[in-house]
Amino acid sequence: MDKPFFSIIKKSKKSRARLGVLQTPHGTVQTPSFVPVATKGTLKAIAPNLLKDIGAQVMFVNTFHLVLSPGVDTLRSFGGIHQYASLQLPLMSDSAGFQVFSLGSKINSKGFKITEKGVHFKSPRDGASLFISPEQSMKHQEKIGADILMAFDECIPHGVSHEYALEATERTHRWLLRCIKAKKRKDQRLYGIVQGGGFKDLREQSARFIAEQNVDGIAIGGVSVGETQKEMRDQVRWSAPFLPEKLPRHLLGVGRPKDFRYAISQGMDTFDCVEPTRLARTGTVFTIKGKNIVRMNLMRPLYKKDKKPIEKTCSCYTCKTFSRSYLHHLFREQEMLGHQLASIHNITMMHLEFEKIRQEIQRGIL
Amino acid sequence: MDKPFFSIIKKSKKSRARLGVLQTPHGTVQTPSFVPVATKGTLKAIAPNLLKDIGAQVMFVNTFHLVLSPGVDTLRSFGGIHQYASLQLPLMSDSAGFQVFSLGSKINSKGFKITEKGVHFKSPRDGASLFISPEQSMKHQEKIGADILMAFDECIPHGVSHEYALEATERTHRWLLRCIKAKKRKDQRLYGIVQGGGFKDLREQSARFIAEQNVDGIAIGGVSVGETQKEMRDQVRWSAPFLPEKLPRHLLGVGRPKDFRYAISQGMDTFDCVEPTRLARTGTVFTIKGKNIVRMNLMRPLYKKDKKPIEKTCSCYTCKTFSRSYLHHLFREQEMLGHQLASIHNITMMHLEFEKIRQEIQRGIL
Repeated sequence: MDKPFFSIIKKSKKSRARLGVLQTPHGTVQTPSFVPVATKGTLKAIAPNLLKDIGAQVMFVNTFHLVLSPGVDTLRSFGGIHQYASLQLPLMSDSAGFQVFSLGSKINSKGFKITEKGVHFKSPRDGASLFISPEQSMKHQEKIGADILMAFDECIPHGVSHEYALEATERTHRWLLRCIKAKKRKDQRLYGIVQGGGFKDLREQSARFIAEQNVDGIAIGGVSVGETQKEMRDQVRWSAPFLPEKLPRHLLGVGRPKDFRYAISQGMDTFDCVEPTRLARTGTVFTIKGKNIVRMNLMRPLYKKDKKPIEKTCSCYTCKTFSRSYLHHLFREQEMLGHQLASIHNITMMHLEFEKIRQEIQRGIL
Repeated sequence: MDKPFFSIIKKSKKSRARLGVLQTPHGTVQTPSFVPVATKGTLKAIAPNLLKDIGAQVMFVNTFHLVLSPGVDTLRSFGGIHQYASLQLPLMSDSAGFQVFSLGSKINSKGFKITEKGVHFKSPRDGASLFISPEQSMKHQEKIGADILMAFDECIPHGVSHEYALEATERTHRWLLRCIKAKKRKDQRLYGIVQGGGFKDLREQSARFIAEQNVDGIAIGGVSVGETQKEMRDQVRWSAPFLPEKLPRHLLGVGRPKDFRYAISQGMDTFDCVEPTRLARTGTVFTIKGKNIVRMNLMRPLYKKDKKPIEKTCSCYTCKTFSRSYLHHLFREQEMLGHQLASIHNITMMHLEFEKIRQEIQRGIL
């Protein structure tokens, strides 16, 4: 490809923050950027013709879910997820590892077993015995056809021993080498994933290892599962300094507004998280209080007659068109339009927040 | 008002069909026209900025539901339902009668009682004792603020005696006189409702009575509840010839494509029905087979890999953008976007069907 995948436009003098651009066959992404999650090939409740309006530059899809439906061969027969779901923007896919491991630990079934070759697990749909390996993850992701793929990694449960975490982290490293070898398509980029659990030495060791491999970017994994803000920040701080500056860095599953500036000042570029849309579906929307993004629950009776928009500084369709009262009514009556309007708003708020963040880096504030 | 409320553009020579225009403070409606139902102030799953695209010229809202939430005083404080729900098109509201009576017959509770003054019934939410009268229905509808209001009528259950139907029909007539007296706003139009149940003499008697009153339009009611197509057609045929030609005529709750041309040839102008959107939410969409609109259930396995649009002659966003396979996936996975895309399609299909019907009248075919 002619253009480099990742270019740094400006580096902060105050922190490790940087402004960058990701170039993909489906468009460019200004970083730092939020990455909304379209789990099953749809950003829940939002038609793809609205994605531009709400500021989505790039989205995330989940391999595990797409394998179950519509199936990766169906996706391939349509030319990939972009065409199938009319998602005309850069896309990232995960490895399926996160779901396989969270499934395994949740159901704790006899059928769940980690081996060097891969992971045996039971289908959540019909209990069938399934198996996934680094090679299969890459095959699935190649058929899905996203622009940025994640290596197959082992997610380390919260609270395990150093010995357990070491073993899992080293297996993740060996699996990365197999992913690199297995990946065939040249138009897709591969991110290696830093693991290491809650241990400083393992995070550093993992970051150093991943940094030396032939990858297009690096993700930090396993920092969002049942951990405190302090633990999340520790793990980012322990990993980030060892990542090569020239590679883009993704923080998996972190999407609380209060965490963005910290992680960006540590050098992170992109963030995927279901939280803005998941919250939206419960009637919880973002507003601004002082300089912070805070949550507002539209179901509360005090909004019943409130004529104000959710957030007066927000430029989204929802805020330009509807009152809190109308949204309260929609949520009380379980009207689907409520989910749609609240999701439009929350994703737009993420977009506006990252626009601010990019301006702060531009101006040397962050 | 300067312009007449209803103008006839062309009369068919083959039947009683006519082309017309309704003029309202919120825009005009080309008739014959389908009237999608936005029960609680939202056409389910569809944001109002899409209404123009899907061809909605006019919509219907349900007074009973809007009284329960958000409440008519809230609506009035916003300047009415158009502003509250951002529905910038002509709107019709019903009288709440249909819901009160179907509720009464369903729960058959001790609390349900019809008197000359009005109807006592229990709230479906909290069991509270409620009462509605012609005067209250008009007050509610004035606060809701739709352009076209329905008089408060008594819906006659299927299968009752001639004596019962006569009594109810005559009460509906007396209630209409009270509605006319109670209505204060000059910017809203009032339709009287023909009842008479399944009896030819009562339908004729009712149509003649309503036709003589000071109303802006006439609706035919009670033809859709648990009746066969033959019964529906009988009741339209028995009523329609006695309606003054200069008044617009609405057929309440009839929305099956196979019924439109028959009713239009009998002189009906507008039709409201929840069916296109209700079917859409179950994955049932309209396609064309020969010259007829038929149903297709997107959940069926045969659509799993089908690359075709729902209907190749349809111009809607859904058909221009997505395959049956993707829609099948969305419905199987219970993604809200499926409801949205199927609703967009079904309403567009109604719009295209009525465009055809209007052309057929124009060309002298219908």
